Amino acid sequence: MATYSTSKKLVAEFIGTFWLVLGGCGSAVLAAKFMAGGADTGLGIGFLGVSLAFGLTVLTGAYALGPISGGHFNPAVSLGLAVGGRFSFAELPGYVIAQVLGAIAAAAVLYVVATGNGASVGGFATNGFGELSPGGYGMVAALVIEVVLTAVFLIVILGATARRAAPGFAGMAIGLTLTLIHLISIPVTNTSVNPARSTGVALFAETAALGQLWLFWVAPLVGAAIGAVIYKALLANPQDE
Amino acid sequence: MATYSTSKKLVAEFIGTFWLVLGGCGSAVLAAKFMAGGADTGLGIGFLGVSLAFGLTVLTGAYALGPISGGHFNPAVSLGLAVGGRFSFAELPGYVIAQVLGAIAAAAVLYVVATGNGASVGGFATNGFGELSPGGYGMVAALVIEVVLTAVFLIVILGATARRAAPGFAGMAIGLTLTLIHLISIPVTNTSVNPARSTGVALFAETAALGQLWLFWVAPLVGAAIGAVIYKALLANPQDE
Amino acid sequence: MATYSTSKKLVAEFIGTFWLVLGGCGSAVLAAKFMAGGADTGLGIGFLGVSLAFGLTVLTGAYALGPISGGHFNPAVSLGLAVGGRFSFAELPGYVIAQVLGAIAAAAVLYVVATGNGASVGGFATNGFGELSPGGYGMVAALVIEVVLTAVFLIVILGATARRAAPGFAGMAIGLTLTLIHLISIPVTNTSVNPARSTGVALFAETAALGQLWLFWVAPLVGAAIGAVIYKALLANPQDE
Amino acid sequence: MATYSTSKKLVAEFIGTFWLVLGGCGSAVLAAKFMAGGADTGLGIGFLGVSLAFGLTVLTGAYALGPISGGHFNPAVSLGLAVGGRFSFAELPGYVIAQVLGAIAAAAVLYVVATGNGASVGGFATNGFGELSPGGYGMVAALVIEVVLTAVFLIVILGATARRAAPGFAGMAIGLTLTLIHLISIPVTNTSVNPARSTGVALFAETAALGQLWLFWVAPLVGAAIGAVIYKALLANPQDE
Repeated sequence: MATYSTSKKLVAEFIGTFWLVLGGCGSAVLAAKFMAGGADTGLGIGFLGVSLAFGLTVLTGAYALGPISGGHFNPAVSLGLAVGGRFSFAELPGYVIAQVLGAIAAAAVLYVVATGNGASVGGFATNGFGELSPGGYGMVAALVIEVVLTAVFLIVILGATARRAAPGFAGMAIGLTLTLIHLISIPVTNTSVNPARSTGVALFAETAALGQLWLFWVAPLVGAAIGAVIYKALLANPQDE
Repeated sequence: MATYSTSKKLVAEFIGTFWLVLGGCGSAVLAAKFMAGGADTGLGIGFLGVSLAFGLTVLTGAYALGPISGGHFNPAVSLGLAVGGRFSFAELPGYVIAQVLGAIAAAAVLYVVATGNGASVGGFATNGFGELSPGGYGMVAALVIEVVLTAVFLIVILGATARRAAPGFAGMAIGLTLTLIHLISIPVTNTSVNPARSTGVALFAETAALGQLWLFWVAPLVGAAIGAVIYKALLANPQDE
Repeated sequence: MATYSTSKKLVAEFIGTFWLVLGGCGSAVLAAKFMAGGADTGLGIGFLGVSLAFGLTVLTGAYALGPISGGHFNPAVSLGLAVGGRFSFAELPGYVIAQVLGAIAAAAVLYVVATGNGASVGGFATNGFGELSPGGYGMVAALVIEVVLTAVFLIVILGATARRAAPGFAGMAIGLTLTLIHLISIPVTNTSVNPARSTGVALFAETAALGQLWLFWVAPLVGAAIGAVIYKALLANPQDE
Repeated sequence: MATYSTSKKLVAEFIGTFWLVLGGCGSAVLAAKFMAGGADTGLGIGFLGVSLAFGLTVLTGAYALGPISGGHFNPAVSLGLAVGGRFSFAELPGYVIAQVLGAIAAAAVLYVVATGNGASVGGFATNGFGELSPGGYGMVAALVIEVVLTAVFLIVILGATARRAAPGFAGMAIGLTLTLIHLISIPVTNTSVNPARSTGVALFAETAALGQLWLFWVAPLVGAAIGAVIYKALLANPQDE
């Protein structure tokens, strides 16, 4: 397999994170609930459809772009892979910048589309806790769930991409892990586990989501580092890494 | 692997596009909402089920027919693959004709079935904007979403079928990309990204969908070309193509 | 790979068809709609969940039992494979008997469970047309949809298991084809494409389903034969079979 | 492939069962129904989403941790594999203890999150029959369905991991089998087939679930042993095991 230049890697991370936000947040904003004439039609995709959409952005992005950049699409994943010894800390800043820019670009495209029927964007699929939690969950619950889910996310990523793992299946397993994470936690925080995703839409939301953005950088990054440490210390066998 | 004659390739594209329209538009027309005695039963598959159905037509068609014809089932995909250097421009007209004929045949079968309980077909799962958009989205939103989604669709297709990609997984990744595309955009345009699919059902619809059909040729074709150019210029490594 | 004795093959077909009816019809009877205190809770899995369940019975059965018996679980599939030259006509009667017995056994178990809260079984997930069609579709619509869907089902099966096809993915593609078939056609006939499945539950239903059972033998068998003939005549390349 | 120490295996089983309960029971408790202002929003994931979540915990855990411990995450699976000759009885007690502890840890984390909006936990996704069955199904129905489903679960596991099976696909097939099992049986017992999962949440529930816990140890263990015996006696070919 050929090596890819840094610029191709960064374009891949930009496009992959663009896809993650356009697909995940886009499905949430445009299709979760589908009203007609002021009434709920019952045709909307609900939290189940949004969960599937988020996972499929990563699954499809991983098979298309994974061989180029590794297919992180998420600063927490990049950090966790660096802590786990699978990614270089030197490349981390570039990846994070590309991911955040991709997320912002997607949010901008989504803004144009979502306002194309005269609607306002409201929460715009941002993450939050307390008053901004979909189900009214407080800050402690938000911190716990974001840290724990990102930690397990990294354990799955590190395990499914180890040398011993079934070849080719990692993209499926990792994408569907993101679906599972959303099935659990949309009511709590609207599910982040990805600071770039949280940042992109927070810039356009009409709520105070920007003021809570810190938690969706801190918790996923801390959780990712914890997951990587657990994996290395308690699970990994050096011969299989 | 043996080479297939042109006629077998065209039959495969006809059947694959027939399957795409029968499965995708068929599930939308017959099962999205399930009424009984004039009331919504809540049993219908909704936009989530329709999204899954569209994706599964391509996933299943790709594994069954992909080795014969490449499994395009979509004029925009054929064009994008030609722009991307993976398909011959000389074969393009034949493929497009087979795809459109397959789509029309499926719409005819669906018409017979759908009217088999005395119902009229109404919009018949056609694509539209403005008054014909499910959620009332205007022409600019329709153009933007169809161009952007088709562009990313082609990037995924080109990436997932590159030589470096995990063998065998392309059919799954590409099919599920179409599911994801529908999860995002059914409320906007009823989701095309495929001019053959739009044409087949527009011929039978009782609405003015035929008058908006131009957009669902222009936007997917332009989007596919853009996606292929981005892929070639910014992502591809010649050694891995 | 070792060869399996006829008795092991028949046990595999019995168990696989048992699983198909228990999972597919079981999910329909027990979980499609979930009432509490006489009101719809909205928690039921709907036609989408039932479609997924039918497909997953075949997907999981194919990976577990496919290497033993071929994983047909359906008289129409066995017939189509025989017409397509992939299965021996001599083995056909034994397979069909094992499949029908497996379906009946599953319906019996399901009967015990479903009546375990005092409910009557009603239609018991049987297939029908006219008055017994979920959406009131007539006999012609029922014939057309069952013939066409079974024909495409066989084309997918024959294509996805050809020598040229991606190794290992056939079970996934074929299972998800059955999901797709249900997403389209539950409202029309409650979806058969499988005479054994139709027979098993018809024996226990409280409706007149048994009187319409002939159509759900004729249409799937005819459709399967048509699909196999189309595949052989128009798609297959002898070198790749 | 390297061998893993007992401690790494037990950590893998702890984490995998933690993930199964956090994901499966977590999605049920937090997201099955999503209320706002006392009214059902219709956005909840329902039994379909919960079924998907349970299956994805096993699918993702299997790809990540399967090569370390075998990926059982369930005392019934460990027992069945031992009866089937694929796992050592000597390792069974350690595995079961790790699984139960992982389940309890997940239930504790879930308790903290679920009460984070001031709600009480109620049934907390526990299993039950009679008054504690979601659909009011009695003890016989509960026993039958849990025994039968666990038996087929083991047949799928043993078949999909046999030497003849398609390499790499077992994790997908086994995870989706658990999804299918839930699609069938949530209304009957809330679906166990896993004594560790039943135990973890029963310790925190506000109902009398603990008093019925015996059935969710007995039935899955008996079912698993039956499934393993059927597989060995009637299906397996020693050369392919």
